[in-house]
This record gives sequence, structure tokens and C-alpha cells, in this order.
Amino acid sequence: MTIGSLGEFGLIAAITALLPRDGRTLVGVGDDAAVLAVPDGRVVATTDMLVEGRHFRRDWSSGADIGAKAAAQNLADVAAMGADPIALLVGFAAPGDVPAGWARDLVAGIAQECSRAGATVAGGDVSSAGTVVLGITALGTMAGRDPVTRAGARPGDLLAVAGVLGHSAAGFALLEAGLTEPASLVAAHRRPRPPYRAGPEAAALGATAMIDISDGLIADLGHVAEASGVRISIETALVPPDPTLAAAASALASVASAAAAPSAGTAPAPAPAAPAPAPAASGSRLPRPLDWLLTGGEDHALAATFPPGTPLPSQWSVIGRVEDGRGILVDGKTFQGSAGWKHFW
Amino acid sequence: MTIGSLGEFGLIAAITALLPRDGRTLVGVGDDAAVLAVPDGRVVATTDMLVEGRHFRRDWSSGADIGAKAAAQNLADVAAMGADPIALLVGFAAPGDVPAGWARDLVAGIAQECSRAGATVAGGDVSSAGTVVLGITALGTMAGRDPVTRAGARPGDLLAVAGVLGHSAAGFALLEAGLTEPASLVAAHRRPRPPYRAGPEAAALGATAMIDISDGLIADLGHVAEASGVRISIETALVPPDPTLAAAASALASVASAAAAPSAGTAPAPAPAAPAPAPAASGSRLPRPLDWLLTGGEDHALAATFPPGTPLPSQWSVIGRVEDGRGILVDGKTFQGSAGWKHFW
Repeated sequence: MTIGSLGEFGLIAAITALLPRDGRTLVGVGDDAAVLAVPDGRVVATTDMLVEGRHFRRDWSSGADIGAKAAAQNLADVAAMGADPIALLVGFAAPGDVPAGWARDLVAGIAQECSRAGATVAGGDVSSAGTVVLGITALGTMAGRDPVTRAGARPGDLLAVAGVLGHSAAGFALLEAGLTEPASLVAAHRRPRPPYRAGPEAAALGATAMIDISDGLIADLGHVAEASGVRISIETALVPPDPTLAAAASALASVASAAAAPSAGTAPAPAPAAPAPAPAASGSRLPRPLDWLLTGGEDHALAATFPPGTPLPSQWSVIGRVEDGRGILVDGKTFQGSAGWKHFW
Repeated sequence: MTIGSLGEFGLIAAITALLPRDGRTLVGVGDDAAVLAVPDGRVVATTDMLVEGRHFRRDWSSGADIGAKAAAQNLADVAAMGADPIALLVGFAAPGDVPAGWARDLVAGIAQECSRAGATVAGGDVSSAGTVVLGITALGTMAGRDPVTRAGARPGDLLAVAGVLGHSAAGFALLEAGLTEPASLVAAHRRPRPPYRAGPEAAALGATAMIDISDGLIADLGHVAEASGVRISIETALVPPDPTLAAAASALASVASAAAAPSAGTAPAPAPAAPAPAPAASGSRLPRPLDWLLTGGEDHALAATFPPGTPLPSQWSVIGRVEDGRGILVDGKTFQGSAGWKHFW
């Protein structure tokens, strides 16, 4: 059974049956538009396009993982404003030969991630296309708080992060090398778990600026520094050690050295010898775990700045501070190298 | 200059400069998400995916027309709930070799149509893709009115329409036949002009159900009849005569008869003779203008039902009524034939 044989209305019916709903959805799927309650009179809205072969691979991630990740990156953008996510709208374009079961898995993954974030799916659209393209819109409510933009960081503020850093990048490197352990990192690449509650929490604590880490900590803090007209200084000694990243770096080093030096007793390698896989971060000037932490994207951690002295709950780790100036410092030096993922052309 | 050479951030900067803004946009383009004012605590939201080769052709419509049409179909969905459109979010995926000027035209067309509807562009996303895909989300505010769904039509209600019917379909037939006159119909196909103000107006007048005519009058009224559990009866004698549609039908008939009967004095046609182009509506049981009126899509007129006796402003034309029963009647008979455009697989 393909989505082409289901047809537009059959596919919509199959999808709709999977969707969570709640009382904030005044008009849901099935009308010209959805109507949602946002009691404080402000709505937060963001959209992302996800294109097969650019943002995901159907041979590398399940439909459910792709759906959950697509939902997560939009829901995290809402949380990064200090808002509570309330609903997604899901645009889905695909070739007619996509299996109906794959489309159902995709929607189930979207629904699962919405439930994690306390949101529902309130509407959408389906269309044919040559490859799978998702157009996801997330909506949220400020619930009386002020939006936390990228532009409010002030010299003297604390810099803190909530959520994991570098796990998705490490998981990607493991998959590229054909490894599946540490499994938690591969899982983090396939399905990030943004700390949604930390966004509204930061807003309530008086965060002066906040951003979702989608392209890499340094790249995204660069946007905050630019929008706020400040310099942001990261102290790597403050970043909590992450034994899982260290284990991943060791596993990748073992693979690389095994490929470079075949063990005694094996037959001579056929000439020309296969080249050893190049470490993914071979151009980096940083040890690998730190490189993942500072430049890895797609974890959708939150970074925020707070007035000095703000008492922070345990899910927030202070990793630096805001200063007069411009740009990003890492341990007192201007960061050299690629700051994050370039995801366009 | 292509969008690939501009790059992600260059393209975003070029686009952002073209966008209208207004005071309802509390946080606009350039942050993790937009924040919009919806003072009555309810937001209306709808999304559509538009795929090159399925929904538009770059060789047949300008970038500006494609952008305006994409905006119009989403803004009309908001109006069809009885809401005032306030903003669009625009997702844009495209190959890197798309000319930067074409992308700017697209955005200019989106901005023009937003201005017609009283809306702005509050955010978006750009990505690479093999073909152009647009993911447009429209947001609106109820401004204290109740949403008008598809489900409220009651026996005895009046059926009325605002906006043009059949113009886009007639324009498409003209383009297919290589004709460019009547020019207003070709223009209507390239860039529909939905009657946005009629939506909130109908809500204020107590409309019991409303829908945007995107797939065809009969097809879309079928959704209202089903959702409301009623029968809807159209009287074609009540539909205002449309001399432009009659002129288009004549022009197409002339082309067809000229192709079928070469004038005296021309050289004998080479054998085998080229077949005469088949009239596009050859399978229809209705005269062509009426077929366009009843089944043509993409004009984004609004159809609504009103309690009997409701005094309707001039832009609303009564064309039938709601009855006990199921389905759609045209002049007392069940409609035979294809009710509208199938746009999926």
C-alpha cells in the first residue's frame, strides 16, 4: 500500500487518526484553517523546510525518527522564545510510491514529539512531489511572559546552556564510520530531545537573550552576540565533562588506527590499499569531544544569558559570560575554524 | 547571480528587505520565531505546500505571480474562517541555480498579496532542494468574532458566494490553447484575487458555514454539505451571468473549428493531418461557462451559508439554499461528472 493508492483524502484520514488533540484546539484538522487559544493575546510562530537528501535520509533514519526530529527542531524554536509550544501544522509533499506505512510512522513520530513538548497537531497539507519535503510550522503561547529574543544580552550577563551539546554530531560521526555504539549518541542524532521546559523557565527567570542551538554552539551564539552588540566568552573548563563523547572519540580512534594498521596475521592488503577513513573533524584544532561540543549542530539545546547573580535551576549550566566587544571568545581566544554546519548550497 | 551564489544569509537579507511589517508583529524575521499580537486570544492558522511542476510552472507564470498565488490561497483560507489575515511564514526550498532575481520576484509577489490582504510576512526558512517547493503558513485573528466552520449550515439557510467563479479555469483553458484573450481570465489564472474582506464580513453577518473555493464550487460545497449533514442546492439561474466567460468559450470554439476546418485556398494539409485540439471540457455535460463556474478551482472565491432573511451586502450573491438531505443538487438534479480538480497523485 502506497500513499498514491491511498489518495489525498485517504492519506489525510489515516494521518488524522494518529494526531493528539487538546482543549486549546478550538477548530482542528478538517476545516479551512485551525483556530487555537492563545489566552494572553500573543502567538509565537516559526517554520522550517526539511528536504530529503539534505536534511534526512530515508535509508538512515526511520519515518518515526525523521518525524520526531522535524517536530523537535520547530518546537525547540518556540521554546527558545520562552514560549510553551501548543501546536504544529504539518505540510507533507512526497512521491506517490512512498509506502503508506512510512507516512504513518512519520506522523506517529511527529505526534510523539508533540506529546513530549505538550503540543498537538492542528492542521496540515499533503501534496505530491518528486522527493519527500516537510514544511513544519510550530505555534506557541507566551502565557504572560515576555518573549526572549537574541538581542537582549548585556555585558556582565551569565551564559548558560540547557540540554546536551555535541551528541548529534558525535552520533553522525559514528554512523559515518559504520559504528552503532555508544548507542545513546546514535539515538541522539536520529532523534534529538530538546529541553522544552527550560525555555519558559529561562524566560520566567529573566533571561536577557536565548537561542536554540541548531547549527552549533559557537555559530548560534554568534547570532546572539551580533544581535545584542556584545562579545560572548565561553570557558571550556566550565562545560560539564561528557564521558559518552569521550567514549565515542575513543571508538572512532580505534576504527581509524585499525584501518591504518591491519593486525598481524591478516593477509597482505590488496594494492592499492584502501585509504583509512579520514576522521570527520580532521581539520579541527580542538580535541574531538570539545569540537563536537562547540560546533556540533542539531541537538537543539538552549543557550541563554541571564543577569549576573540569577540563581539557575540544575538543568542550566553556566559556561561563560557576556562582555563588551564583538564576536565569540573560547578560553579567551577568537575561535578558529568552522563554527557550525552550513546547510544551504 | 543565483541564490546559490548569494548563499543562505545573503538570500535571507535580500528577501527581508522586501517584506512589509506592521505593529502587530512584536518580533519579526531574524529570531528563532516570530511573535504576533492576536488581541482576542485566538489565532487562526493554515498551511499549504506548493510544488514546482505540480502547482506552478516557472515557464508559465512569473515569480511574482507564483508568489502572489501561493500567498492568496493561504490568506483566503484564513478569511474563510471569518478571520483577518495578519501574517505569513514562508518556507522556500530551491535549487542553487535559481536566479536571485526570480527569488526576489517571488517574494515581491508574496509581499504584494499580503498587502492586499492587510497582512505582513513575519518569518520563514530557506533550504536547498532539487525543485522549488514553497511551504506557506498564514495566520489570522478572529478579532472577537466566532470562527465560521464548514459544519454549521442548516436547512433553510441561504447559499451565497463572494468573488469570481470559473475565471482561473477559463484562463487555464485559454493558456492551454495558446490564447491570451480575454486577458482578465489569463490574469485571473496567474494571480487570483480572493475577496478577503468578505470573510470577516460574513462572520459578522452571522454566516453559519463558510469555505474557500479552491477545488471547485461543487467539490468544496460537498465538504460543507458533508460536515454540516445537509444537502446544498444550487440554482444556476441565480448565478450572475459572466460575459467574459462567454467570450472565452467563443474564442476557444473558434480555435477548435478553425483547426478542424482549414479555410478555402490553403494548400492541402500534409497527411496525416494534425488532429484538432480536443476541447478541454469535451467530457462535460454542461455548457462551458457553466462548467467553469461550477467546477473550476483556484479562484478562491468564498461560499457561505446564512440564516434565511439575512440582508447581504452587494459582494455576496445568493445562488441557492440549504435543504434536508445529503450531497449537492444543481437545478434540482444530482450533479454528474467530475466535481473539481484532483490535486494529488
